[in-house]
Amino acid sequence: MFKKILIANRGEIALRVIRTCKEIGVKTVAVYSTADSESLHVRFADEAVCIGPPSSSESYLKMSAILAAAEITNADAIHPGYGFLAENAKFSKLCEEHGIKFIGATAEMISQMGDKASARATMKAAGVPTIPGSEGILETFEEAESLADEMGYPVMLKATAGGGGKGMRAVWKKEKLRDLWDSARQEAGAAFGNEDMYLEKLIEEPRHIEIQVIGDSFGKACHLSERDCSIQRRHQKLTEEAPSPFMTPQLRKKMGEAAVMAAEYISYEGAGTIEFLVDKHKNFYFMEMNTRIQVEHPITEQVIDYDLIYEQIKVAAGIPISGKNYFPKLHSIECRINAEDPFNDFRPSPGKITTLHIPGGHGVRVDSHVYAGYSIPPNYDSMIAKLITTAQTREEAISKMRRALNEFVIEGIKTTIPFHRQLMEHPDYIAGNYTTKFMEDFEIQPVEEDE
Amino acid sequence: MFKKILIANRGEIALRVIRTCKEIGVKTVAVYSTADSESLHVRFADEAVCIGPPSSSESYLKMSAILAAAEITNADAIHPGYGFLAENAKFSKLCEEHGIKFIGATAEMISQMGDKASARATMKAAGVPTIPGSEGILETFEEAESLADEMGYPVMLKATAGGGGKGMRAVWKKEKLRDLWDSARQEAGAAFGNEDMYLEKLIEEPRHIEIQVIGDSFGKACHLSERDCSIQRRHQKLTEEAPSPFMTPQLRKKMGEAAVMAAEYISYEGAGTIEFLVDKHKNFYFMEMNTRIQVEHPITEQVIDYDLIYEQIKVAAGIPISGKNYFPKLHSIECRINAEDPFNDFRPSPGKITTLHIPGGHGVRVDSHVYAGYSIPPNYDSMIAKLITTAQTREEAISKMRRALNEFVIEGIKTTIPFHRQLMEHPDYIAGNYTTKFMEDFEIQPVEEDE
Repeated sequence: MFKKILIANRGEIALRVIRTCKEIGVKTVAVYSTADSESLHVRFADEAVCIGPPSSSESYLKMSAILAAAEITNADAIHPGYGFLAENAKFSKLCEEHGIKFIGATAEMISQMGDKASARATMKAAGVPTIPGSEGILETFEEAESLADEMGYPVMLKATAGGGGKGMRAVWKKEKLRDLWDSARQEAGAAFGNEDMYLEKLIEEPRHIEIQVIGDSFGKACHLSERDCSIQRRHQKLTEEAPSPFMTPQLRKKMGEAAVMAAEYISYEGAGTIEFLVDKHKNFYFMEMNTRIQVEHPITEQVIDYDLIYEQIKVAAGIPISGKNYFPKLHSIECRINAEDPFNDFRPSPGKITTLHIPGGHGVRVDSHVYAGYSIPPNYDSMIAKLITTAQTREEAISKMRRALNEFVIEGIKTTIPFHRQLMEHPDYIAGNYTTKFMEDFEIQPVEEDE
Repeated sequence: MFKKILIANRGEIALRVIRTCKEIGVKTVAVYSTADSESLHVRFADEAVCIGPPSSSESYLKMSAILAAAEITNADAIHPGYGFLAENAKFSKLCEEHGIKFIGATAEMISQMGDKASARATMKAAGVPTIPGSEGILETFEEAESLADEMGYPVMLKATAGGGGKGMRAVWKKEKLRDLWDSARQEAGAAFGNEDMYLEKLIEEPRHIEIQVIGDSFGKACHLSERDCSIQRRHQKLTEEAPSPFMTPQLRKKMGEAAVMAAEYISYEGAGTIEFLVDKHKNFYFMEMNTRIQVEHPITEQVIDYDLIYEQIKVAAGIPISGKNYFPKLHSIECRINAEDPFNDFRPSPGKITTLHIPGGHGVRVDSHVYAGYSIPPNYDSMIAKLITTAQTREEAISKMRRALNEFVIEGIKTTIPFHRQLMEHPDYIAGNYTTKFMEDFEIQPVEEDE
């Protein structure tokens, strides 16, 4: 086991890693920018090293400063958290070259999964379903037609130069393909001066469902079931839950097997997530793999009673996994509490927290680095807390979340708490009837100032 | 189900009841003394009624004020929490007479179990083991000798007028009885002017182990396994755990059956606790029954995944229990964080909390009503938070507790946190090797001011 782990991150995830290290008796080193000197991760780590000014590029992204901190403090491993250097192949490689264990994927795996085309090709080779589509530009209408026949309708025509929906057409029937092909090309030509088209299978009512996997250094992987992360705004997850209300035991088995197959195909080491799009017919397609711990990892921990950070550390230390898969025994929901104004287009709202009451009690977990008097710096991510409720049923987990959101008092800044309160009352959310399109139609209602 | 519940209490237990009510959609009424106007239970309840000045006898113990508050707000039930009026037969009866459901035991059960002699007689009749001993004063030495023979050694001679260990003798062998009888009588005569003696079985290496029960209004009861509360100082519990490290499946079965038998014998309705003394040979003896929710109820909730307050409310509303017993699936420890100075004989330390950081993360639950800026009034109980950790094993629960205690920051007042930190490092505690005598030998070590 490692003697001392440096955490190359800040905020709640730095504190999260420190917590597990304390529990297992491993010393910790915090690194921090000058903007974070009053942060709890600095206070609770055994040692702390200032690595630069507020700008991320000169602190949390500065590999030389972080490696120097590890060498000065004699840390034998680095946990990168998420974001910053967590999926940086060069940093993983540099750690290896300096004889410091990077608690995460190897440079090779990061590169392989970080590049979309290479990840897709690898997954296809591993036998994992990917979104069917044309390989590059369609030269002729006939080519489009024959590919669409092959994949089956509906399909999506997309301008290679496209953006903002321009030059994009959903095609539900073969009879319509010719007309839509022509109009899409025309529109793309007018908008971008480029009529080139490609074709993809249209994913009907897509849900973002991801499978958590963990692989050890002996080539063995297992899965820890799924998380549903479909509630997103501009590709930013807002809330997640495990299990997915859309899931069935059969689909979980199939997706779990595909994820383990994917992880073992690349001999994946560490905690990782295979993100899938799942259509309304319960077909699933590989989107991407995240070669790191995810923000939403606690809901998995809650429903299977497992410490994912500890497991990351164990496999990095060369301890084999048992190999058995884990299935949810409870239901857990996470709301990301961000310092953002939900009534003003989720604009960031940094500043000083003047009053704080964090909810507690039965079935409530909070992962947060903030306290009354803490000033949220404007330089980084706006997430200030993860509020997680766990219960025997989804209905109870939602009730607990409503209660906990109601109790959460943060004054001095704006937060996304009012958004989550409204979400937890939304009939489609309550029914578990939502897709990645949910937020496109969601309109936040004005509330009284003191809400 | 009730529409509105008044909580005749304050502090964390008032908040605890409000939390469950919010989750199940029942409205709440807080009552408060003028000393508690800034309390969270007042803020989070749907309504709040001031019932008097700080003195408990004129507020939280004033039945007329509380009943008036219930009538004004149209509450159809009262939850008494623990302490104050929770085991007051008259109050239970008054509630009944006013047509307000008392969420707890009936006046009759409270009286029956509240009087020591009547509780003991009832339990003997129910077939529950009680501590063997003389019924009243021993008239002669021969009577003492024959009773000791019958019970078996060791026995304890006790002066009826006794106190502070005077006139008390442990007798391990029959040959010693005569001498100790004489010397005890002599000592009692000299100290109290009264030589009268009685005799009890000596409980060797006693542990305080209690069984949580719940009974419904149909005469059915079940048990939720045990809590070990042996770590006490002057009969005040300091920390509790579930399951007991001393427990075996056989003993749990026997004690559980005895507790259910006891509850069903008196047709007990509501949540209750049968407290037993368990000796080193795993004999167990009834001590007393608490006809209310206990401070330490969360550890039971954690290890069986259950909401005890909800169950109390359900049985009070006339909903039958399933009748199945519950057995621990996890290990949970509670540390009572009191506003007391452990380095100064646990003297109360009321005052204003200037800085507060409550621990969070995986496996940590906090039940507390305090916040940064809150002033602890000197009028009431000194408990300000219950810190509860839960894990798959006792060892992990202790590690989590150490980590969480380390993270708990309360400035402005003295707290028992440093005591708990030392307790969690004590070899006998770690080994699970402790009895109710533990605190007699425990000496707190001085620590640096900033610890």
